[in-house]
Amino acid sequence: MPENHPEQFEKLCELSTRAHTLQGISSLLSWDQETYMPEMASPIRAKQCELLAELAHDIKTSSEFEKTLNRVIDIASGDIKEKGLTAPQEAAAKVYRRDFVRDRKLPTAFVQEFALVTSEAIPVWQKAKIGNDFASFEPTLEKIISLVRKKADFLGYDKHPYDALLEEYEPGCTTAQIGDIFEKVQEKLTALLKHISEKPTIGDFDIPAPESEQMEICQLLLGHIGYDFKRGRIDISSHPFSSSYHPYDSRITTRAESHGIVSQILTTLHEAGHSFYDMGRSVAAQGTPLGDPISHGIHESQSRLWETRIGRSLPFWQFFYPLLQKRFPQALVGISIDDFYKKINIVKPTLIRTDADEVTYPLHVILRFEIEKELTSGALKVKELPDRWRAGMKKLLMVEPKNDTEGCLQDIHWSMGAFGYFPTYSLGNIYAAQLFETFAKDHPDWESNVRNGQFAFIKEWLSDAVWQHGRRYNGEELIRKVTGKVLTHEPFINYLTAKYSTPN
Amino acid sequence: MPENHPEQFEKLCELSTRAHTLQGISSLLSWDQETYMPEMASPIRAKQCELLAELAHDIKTSSEFEKTLNRVIDIASGDIKEKGLTAPQEAAAKVYRRDFVRDRKLPTAFVQEFALVTSEAIPVWQKAKIGNDFASFEPTLEKIISLVRKKADFLGYDKHPYDALLEEYEPGCTTAQIGDIFEKVQEKLTALLKHISEKPTIGDFDIPAPESEQMEICQLLLGHIGYDFKRGRIDISSHPFSSSYHPYDSRITTRAESHGIVSQILTTLHEAGHSFYDMGRSVAAQGTPLGDPISHGIHESQSRLWETRIGRSLPFWQFFYPLLQKRFPQALVGISIDDFYKKINIVKPTLIRTDADEVTYPLHVILRFEIEKELTSGALKVKELPDRWRAGMKKLLMVEPKNDTEGCLQDIHWSMGAFGYFPTYSLGNIYAAQLFETFAKDHPDWESNVRNGQFAFIKEWLSDAVWQHGRRYNGEELIRKVTGKVLTHEPFINYLTAKYSTPN
Repeated sequence: MPENHPEQFEKLCELSTRAHTLQGISSLLSWDQETYMPEMASPIRAKQCELLAELAHDIKTSSEFEKTLNRVIDIASGDIKEKGLTAPQEAAAKVYRRDFVRDRKLPTAFVQEFALVTSEAIPVWQKAKIGNDFASFEPTLEKIISLVRKKADFLGYDKHPYDALLEEYEPGCTTAQIGDIFEKVQEKLTALLKHISEKPTIGDFDIPAPESEQMEICQLLLGHIGYDFKRGRIDISSHPFSSSYHPYDSRITTRAESHGIVSQILTTLHEAGHSFYDMGRSVAAQGTPLGDPISHGIHESQSRLWETRIGRSLPFWQFFYPLLQKRFPQALVGISIDDFYKKINIVKPTLIRTDADEVTYPLHVILRFEIEKELTSGALKVKELPDRWRAGMKKLLMVEPKNDTEGCLQDIHWSMGAFGYFPTYSLGNIYAAQLFETFAKDHPDWESNVRNGQFAFIKEWLSDAVWQHGRRYNGEELIRKVTGKVLTHEPFINYLTAKYSTPN
Repeated sequence: MPENHPEQFEKLCELSTRAHTLQGISSLLSWDQETYMPEMASPIRAKQCELLAELAHDIKTSSEFEKTLNRVIDIASGDIKEKGLTAPQEAAAKVYRRDFVRDRKLPTAFVQEFALVTSEAIPVWQKAKIGNDFASFEPTLEKIISLVRKKADFLGYDKHPYDALLEEYEPGCTTAQIGDIFEKVQEKLTALLKHISEKPTIGDFDIPAPESEQMEICQLLLGHIGYDFKRGRIDISSHPFSSSYHPYDSRITTRAESHGIVSQILTTLHEAGHSFYDMGRSVAAQGTPLGDPISHGIHESQSRLWETRIGRSLPFWQFFYPLLQKRFPQALVGISIDDFYKKINIVKPTLIRTDADEVTYPLHVILRFEIEKELTSGALKVKELPDRWRAGMKKLLMVEPKNDTEGCLQDIHWSMGAFGYFPTYSLGNIYAAQLFETFAKDHPDWESNVRNGQFAFIKEWLSDAVWQHGRRYNGEELIRKVTGKVLTHEPFINYLTAKYSTPN
């Protein structure tokens, strides 16, 4: 923390910390809801989340907050008014202003209703997914989409209502920008996929094991990569996630019904990547923009980097495969490390996004991006969604779900009202690839280090490049600062092409 | 819920429900703190609890609450003002007034400080207990006692500062009243104990088992007594507790390091007794006095009833012992049900309150009651506490702890600032005995029912007698209403004398 004490700025931080504390409590309630909460508590949990959302929103849009903010930065013009701010504090003031202008556009009653409806929607979606019963989820989804469209209207937009929604997850990014990048990614990956599909594939591969053994391996892995169990923990939930409200309490979960050990390891690396970012941000700046993560896309870049660039790399398995062999000698008998590496990197279009390989994954995201745009603009009706999904899967991935459980009901996001979230998954890969290019230049020996079970240097590099800054930069600015180049899909495509075009 | 709609009363319920929701969130945070929270999160959790306490207190003492309350009931005189209230609503209005007058006496800053200091104190106490290091806890306990004394001063009292504290846990009860009852209990139990001690005892008895097997038995037991896992769950914590903020989410824990199966079964019955009460209160009246529990003593009467009157009874074990024998044939070989029943009902003065038998338990509580009075009045200094404890144990129980871990550091309560809480444990036994006397008259066949594994009728009786009323009556009033007699120690002493004076 800087040693200057700008009075109004500090007052602002105090107020935002109160709101942040309430939002942190909400995160914990959500973690509990997904892990341990008794099922009948759902409606009560919804009420709790609604009240916390209301109270946090009240603080962030209060006249006290507005007055204080306006003494730090002119809300109308964006000019800094308080003297003596450091450069990061000036950047934070601008983020405060951006958030305030945005938050104030949403009436408290709307924020409450949104929190209530989406909290109630989650169990409805869960049941619909289990029972392959889209019709039972339809009215709820309709209500959510009408709220989402209302939200876009409240927030305002120039070109597409989806712009307003994206801004929440990826500040500074537009629908058109993402559309451009995704178009190129789709073109390149479709070509790559065609090339790969022409080769024989060897089918799915994983090592089945009881839940307790899977958890044991995840814990072992977390120990090796330096996950701090004094500040985090790992549990089981139906949909794996990371939950963080503070660097001192950042928890991850892994999947209840997993294909096996390999899938759990990759999921654990993914969630640990999120958690490292959450644990790595400034403790002193918690509750202020300088303690917050930049965006969902940058968050995802951290998880994808660990999952794909480390977890799907040969050096990682040269380190970890012998440990697995020791634990599961029978399942792995006669499988060399090279065979194993090939088996877990098979590219094959499948139905479920979270099971997808690196090449087909972005195509799952592109489908959701297209559908979200259509639902948001009103071009697609909720009742048409299952058909639209099937057609999209066929076109992009050449596979077609037999039912909605493995189709449009597979993801939790829409029940949470999180429209605008999906694109950040693939942006995460794109950011990660560009960051990793620079990382690999800074650490030309990274492969031998990882092969030796060393991981701390990766975290140090990420801390320096990304974690320490809070929201001082937005995603694009950060990429430019770290890599010296504008954001581009090229490192991502180059990586995939190099990895998957070589003869199997 | 009554069908009348008194406008001001309903407004009051709405306001108190907001405060109640925040307090419910706090309960969940405490549950998490004791079960799954990563250790470094302690200070953050303290901040969260502090903010929730502040916000709840603000609502309950707001001018809006005051104005509304004063339209329902005259705050100065206590006369009901709003027309058309039902009898339970009138009772609730009086409780609202009582609580408001009390809450308003505590400044918000004090409530915040109290929540913060005690939340921070818990890990300090935990470390001190583990390390047998009273000195490291001393400054914290001094701070807490000075806050507790301040609290008594804020609240006001006629005779003893401890009266003001008791009122929080057992509304309507005074230090003198409890002192009278405890004096008689002490006298009778000391005599009874002398009588029992003159016989040979056979030493401690339990069935050691790994944690997972202990949990399996607890789950089996909970299934048999009709614990609803859709509304609750059981986990492990260092100090067993029940946590409830709503009939739809009432969780219990059992002990991490237990002596064995029998101890876990009794603990589980105890906590399930609390949980039954919490699940059994009116869902519609949640957030209002008609949905709240009466007092800590009445709450404890429910847990004690299940733990001692059912769980330590012969009929219960005639039902459950065969199930145990099947599960642990080797540990129980050659032990008849009668032997077993005797073994688990051995009376023997020991050091740890939570391990105590039915006869010595109240003496542990009486010691804490005496010490709390002395600490609160200032007659006892914190640094004198370990010596005072040893002397008290010697006098009351004829045993002396070798260290403070098994002495004055054994309980969590003082680190929580919960002065006035301990007496309610023995009041619970006393209430339970008087309630059970009436129950047994209403159900003369209760023993054969329990022997057959039937428990629903007990819950039905308790629901009717206790659970349904919320805070319509205070503890003494409820006892009079249900049993037709004033509160007395006699049923409790009669039960113990009958059970433990018969030749072993």
